[in-house]
Amino acid sequence: MRPHNFSAGPAGLPESVLCRARDEMLDFRGSGASVMELSHRGPVFMQLAEEIEARLRRLMRVPDDYAVLFFQGGATLQFSALVWNLIGDRAGGDYLLSGLWSEKAHAIGRDLCAARVAASSADTQGQFARAPKQSELDLDPHAAWLHYCPNETVHGIEFPYIPESGDVPLVADVSSCILSRPIDVSRFGLLYAGAQKNLGPAGITVVIVRRDLIDEPRAGTPPVLSYRGQAGRESMLNTPPTFAWYLLGLVLEWLEEQGGAAAMAALNDGKSDALYRAIDSSNYYSNRVERDSRSRVNVTFDLAESSATADFAGAAQDAGLLALKGHSAVGGLRASLYNAVSQQAVDDLVAFMAEFERTRG
Amino acid sequence: MRPHNFSAGPAGLPESVLCRARDEMLDFRGSGASVMELSHRGPVFMQLAEEIEARLRRLMRVPDDYAVLFFQGGATLQFSALVWNLIGDRAGGDYLLSGLWSEKAHAIGRDLCAARVAASSADTQGQFARAPKQSELDLDPHAAWLHYCPNETVHGIEFPYIPESGDVPLVADVSSCILSRPIDVSRFGLLYAGAQKNLGPAGITVVIVRRDLIDEPRAGTPPVLSYRGQAGRESMLNTPPTFAWYLLGLVLEWLEEQGGAAAMAALNDGKSDALYRAIDSSNYYSNRVERDSRSRVNVTFDLAESSATADFAGAAQDAGLLALKGHSAVGGLRASLYNAVSQQAVDDLVAFMAEFERTRG
Repeated sequence: MRPHNFSAGPAGLPESVLCRARDEMLDFRGSGASVMELSHRGPVFMQLAEEIEARLRRLMRVPDDYAVLFFQGGATLQFSALVWNLIGDRAGGDYLLSGLWSEKAHAIGRDLCAARVAASSADTQGQFARAPKQSELDLDPHAAWLHYCPNETVHGIEFPYIPESGDVPLVADVSSCILSRPIDVSRFGLLYAGAQKNLGPAGITVVIVRRDLIDEPRAGTPPVLSYRGQAGRESMLNTPPTFAWYLLGLVLEWLEEQGGAAAMAALNDGKSDALYRAIDSSNYYSNRVERDSRSRVNVTFDLAESSATADFAGAAQDAGLLALKGHSAVGGLRASLYNAVSQQAVDDLVAFMAEFERTRG
Repeated sequence: MRPHNFSAGPAGLPESVLCRARDEMLDFRGSGASVMELSHRGPVFMQLAEEIEARLRRLMRVPDDYAVLFFQGGATLQFSALVWNLIGDRAGGDYLLSGLWSEKAHAIGRDLCAARVAASSADTQGQFARAPKQSELDLDPHAAWLHYCPNETVHGIEFPYIPESGDVPLVADVSSCILSRPIDVSRFGLLYAGAQKNLGPAGITVVIVRRDLIDEPRAGTPPVLSYRGQAGRESMLNTPPTFAWYLLGLVLEWLEEQGGAAAMAALNDGKSDALYRAIDSSNYYSNRVERDSRSRVNVTFDLAESSATADFAGAAQDAGLLALKGHSAVGGLRASLYNAVSQQAVDDLVAFMAEFERTRG
């Protein structure tokens, strides 16, 4: 059996997806070439791209008045692209700050427009332990968007609700939670996600945008980052990352076989419940996040003796539990429970934690 | 045997590279994970990235005062990034126009700065059949760069010389010719290349830039497109396309085994000579490019009866000679002879051409 991979991203992929990629490596669908050797504009890849879009639309129940686009550059490049594409004649957008990623999006937004903080849950030390509440939001009705990050991977914080933004389009970086459970796309103006957590390998980014928001981007926008430009060219304005696109398609196929987003929600609730239960029932492990803002995707935890943190991560790795070290910005430990992580993986982690506590705690 | 792939890009890869990627798919170097499942900041991937940079430096004899960087977005995104990063306090840059790609670079440059045409070899119909000559260049000594495309894939035009630009840094889009033969990096301020022709799969872009040219980019540049920012973070300012990076490394390893750029030059001269000889010795096939500007990488050709072009491409495909259709902007046929295309592939193509002419010409 392969080890359990708790990496925050690039994350573990379903073994069956990797086996399929392996088996199809030299000849994709009888073309005589690897999928990465095919012209993106040729019939075989164009057909594949169509299938993948249709599958993503089914899985997420994307309404017809939304475009599904694919980009390179990760969610971080979308921090700029969303400003260029959505700003129109507005002065700027609103941002909710709930952790490292929403702060980064805001910092980049601030370089490009009037980027206002509509709420922040940072404490006086600049640390985050919860999501802002709806009642705390100070919204600008003239903002071009309200941006937030529903799940913060570094801090392990998840919004327990979808913010109400009135007529202002809601924009969300869903890199870490896309397809981890059902989401009502119609509540959003724009959803975007780097693939390397729940969707596939690093190197491809999904953008789902309401078509009426797609306008001419700001002058000077690189054409390959224009939503309008890519929407008019099947996301192939230049050579797309075809192999990453294909792998994303394999992951979506696997997701459908598993029962889709609803099945993932049940699985992910079970995994995160089990891990938080283990943390809460112990005096050795602790989690800093307020209960109703706890992430069901990235579970952060600390040891009572913080000096044992590296030992824990190392011993876990030796036991086949990979990549449990926390992000350098907050330290501690972190188990990322993306879709490809099984309940068995969490059960093994919980057993390891109990044993570590017994011998070292 | 696999069919011969003459695709202009994404292009065919060495079979041994694909086999290696297949065999390592589920466990990279004993890590228990696929390379695409590893954290880019973990020791296994960091080590790999170091090896790849060292190998590229060896293969291209990159001087120490040049940085080697990796990006997403393809060469097309670098059309914008190079302006943002190199403009400094200058008004703009000079461009040589020799075909579709240099025209695109210039068009995007013009959106961002004073992008001057220092020479164009377009005829009165806007068509290209040669590279501009050094004596035709009208250079601005105050330009921030002189940009050109040494090999134009669509028109099949190659510069037979490296332009002399005085103190103005020479910038070249070498996507289609990088490592197809030795190149004197020290003649350039900046070289950049999308990987999907000679280096690997689509989704990763190499930038080789003289360190003294790396300055603060223009305000508003996305951080992940900052040469300075990426140079200070091992090209990992955000999650890089790790699997594409790994595949690029496998291709470089294969290239070293084959004897490097000098061996590729001999191979590529043999292939292009054989194909041009077949074209020139026939009354049925023709090439529009002036002799000393003919590309040794992308060989374009037309049939005496142009209505048979689609038949030719289809029959060739059936005979195991893939992707010979020309680019839609110019029509006709095109054989791209990147490093992974063997002499045998060209010999088979030449034999097919003779037979097609015999039965149809």
